Amino acid sequence: MRYLITIEYNGKNYCGWQYQKNALSVQQVIEDKIFEFLGQRVKLAASGRTDSGVHAFGQRAHFDIDTYFPMKRFPLAINNILPDDIKIKDIQIVDGGFHAQYDAKRKIYVYKLYISRIESPIRKDTHARIIPPFDFELMKEGAKLFLNTHDFKAFSSTGGNIKNTVRTIYRLELEKIEDEITMEIEGDGFLYNMVRIIAGTLVWLGKKKLSLEDIKEAMLTQNRKKAGKTFPAHALYLKEVIY
Amino acid sequence: MRYLITIEYNGKNYCGWQYQKNALSVQQVIEDKIFEFLGQRVKLAASGRTDSGVHAFGQRAHFDIDTYFPMKRFPLAINNILPDDIKIKDIQIVDGGFHAQYDAKRKIYVYKLYISRIESPIRKDTHARIIPPFDFELMKEGAKLFLNTHDFKAFSSTGGNIKNTVRTIYRLELEKIEDEITMEIEGDGFLYNMVRIIAGTLVWLGKKKLSLEDIKEAMLTQNRKKAGKTFPAHALYLKEVIY
Repeated sequence: MRYLITIEYNGKNYCGWQYQKNALSVQQVIEDKIFEFLGQRVKLAASGRTDSGVHAFGQRAHFDIDTYFPMKRFPLAINNILPDDIKIKDIQIVDGGFHAQYDAKRKIYVYKLYISRIESPIRKDTHARIIPPFDFELMKEGAKLFLNTHDFKAFSSTGGNIKNTVRTIYRLELEKIEDEITMEIEGDGFLYNMVRIIAGTLVWLGKKKLSLEDIKEAMLTQNRKKAGKTFPAHALYLKEVIY
Repeated sequence: MRYLITIEYNGKNYCGWQYQKNALSVQQVIEDKIFEFLGQRVKLAASGRTDSGVHAFGQRAHFDIDTYFPMKRFPLAINNILPDDIKIKDIQIVDGGFHAQYDAKRKIYVYKLYISRIESPIRKDTHARIIPPFDFELMKEGAKLFLNTHDFKAFSSTGGNIKNTVRTIYRLELEKIEDEITMEIEGDGFLYNMVRIIAGTLVWLGKKKLSLEDIKEAMLTQNRKKAGKTFPAHALYLKEVIY
């Protein structure tokens, strides 16, 4: 039987989602705790990797178990032995042909920012800082450039061996409440570091280190150097995976 | 000369604002760092204490220095030696008769909540949890009962030796975005644990452990036992002190 779980985690103390030698991953912690609970090794297949330090409100992963599995007891039992910074929010049975990565239709990410002359004691681990002055209206103008289908090669880091760099962004919302800005972005998929580079590009636009024309040019010429820098991982949250 | 500083801190690792023997307070850290910077001991007088674990976006405190004081250099220099979880946001000169506590006209606190069946890995240190089911509309109804001038004795913990327990609440706003609720409360002053007990009372109302009538009765009879419980310190933020 194939099971799909929804996971919330604070990425601060992990090398990312994916298993790595010599570093602790979220995947490894959950697989080890499932083994502790079931006495059986399972292999988790997630909707995608998240990098070191990136958080998730709703990561998804599937696994198979062919013997008896006490699904009803599972979330409570596994959460009791998982650390505070990783919890299973939901489990459901899925079709044997379902795949957490390949069947993902859309993903929603959130990027959290604040505007301040000083590094915030309260938000240093959860938000990225923008040093004032900052033009939020200009940032909102820039956000429109990313909507719809484009080649996002300029807004990705090399490292993946992905050939098709065309993606569709359905929604890029920016909300400012007092000194905090929340960016919420929904797309059919995201290239390596793409959300962090879009965040960095929009911040540089609002800081007037880049212009709207620069962003258009980056997109057309697929030139990574024309886009903004990759903003920090600790402010990025995988909010939801839509199947 | 009297100086007024604005301080942001994450209260997690401190016994509260106020100096205590055998425990590290925010006040002591700042006083020690000012001594390190100036070679002179100052005594900070804050707008009020915050309890162990409580955070502040805008705590205020005054101190006196009669010799030369490099005020312009102060914030940058002191922030360089302060720990990451305490920073000075602003400094200004005030009148010699000004007092950070006695001249405070209003204070604004924020209390952060989320509704979830599981303890949130991302919000466990910053928000308090409400276990569903929860009636947010009923919570909003209850909030109106606290507005204006009342005797808030039922909504305070003993421990202070305060005789006048009458306070005025100018504003109590509740905003729900997805599974998060933010309570913002502005008053002319707050009794010991008052914001945390109002938060606890409104949560118990939404959980139907208390009724609107219970809250009215608590207020009229000044009976602490009729109100809700004191909710956790880690979700409370002193947002602003108004002079």
